Amino acid sequence: MFELRAVGTVQSQLSDPALAPRQGDEGGPEAVLVFDEDMLEAARDLGPGSEVFVLTWLHLARRDVLSVHPRDDPANPLTGVFATRSADRANPIGLHRVTVVAAEGTRVRVRDLEAIDGTPIVDVKPVLRPDGR
Amino acid sequence: MFELRAVGTVQSQLSDPALAPRQGDEGGPEAVLVFDEDMLEAARDLGPGSEVFVLTWLHLARRDVLSVHPRDDPANPLTGVFATRSADRANPIGLHRVTVVAAEGTRVRVRDLEAIDGTPIVDVKPVLRPDGR
Repeated sequence: MFELRAVGTVQSQLSDPALAPRQGDEGGPEAVLVFDEDMLEAARDLGPGSEVFVLTWLHLARRDVLSVHPRDDPANPLTGVFATRSADRANPIGLHRVTVVAAEGTRVRVRDLEAIDGTPIVDVKPVLRPDGR
Repeated sequence: MFELRAVGTVQSQLSDPALAPRQGDEGGPEAVLVFDEDMLEAARDLGPGSEVFVLTWLHLARRDVLSVHPRDDPANPLTGVFATRSADRANPIGLHRVTVVAAEGTRVRVRDLEAIDGTPIVDVKPVLRPDGR
């Protein structure tokens, strides 16, 4: 077992998981990454235009689910969760690619984040290349 | 605090972190994702050609580091870790984009994985679009 800590929280108008878009590029709204004060130094180089992956802890997910019908559609064949973006999985880490719009101290505004309000943030990493590596 | 569990382990010829390439596209070798037996169902749809993100737990990292000189080069200015791929960070999760070469049960062979032998795997997710979302 490994221990993760929250480094911040998502602030968003999205509050109902059922209404949230399935992926950010399906029209996620702007949201704010609110980092804990002790993470100010870690976040200080997230400037406008930065393309980053935000890693979250999907606190409402089920951890005992090994396969799902993608997009909750029974017409989609049952698929092992490692081949899906299902929130339900052994370690419910969310991976969201977003663009930084503005940053001020521990508050970083981003575009296209589908996580709901209050979702814990566990890490942020830069996208290294245009193709998303 | 959130608890992560290992779902498998990286099997690789890379054993010395100092010799490992910094990123997978700098020539990481083939490696095998060896999943725990209870993850067989979760891994069953990882077929040859699949582009996936492998999330690892970088067990040798330091968690108290907030800024680094990228690539350990003092000529690079000190940068907040959320704008770098440094292994040292509050939650040392590794994010590796790889291509599946072959899969047989709980053993999945991949191309371009820079993680060292024995690195715990915590999740696998599909790349959704060519640009890496």
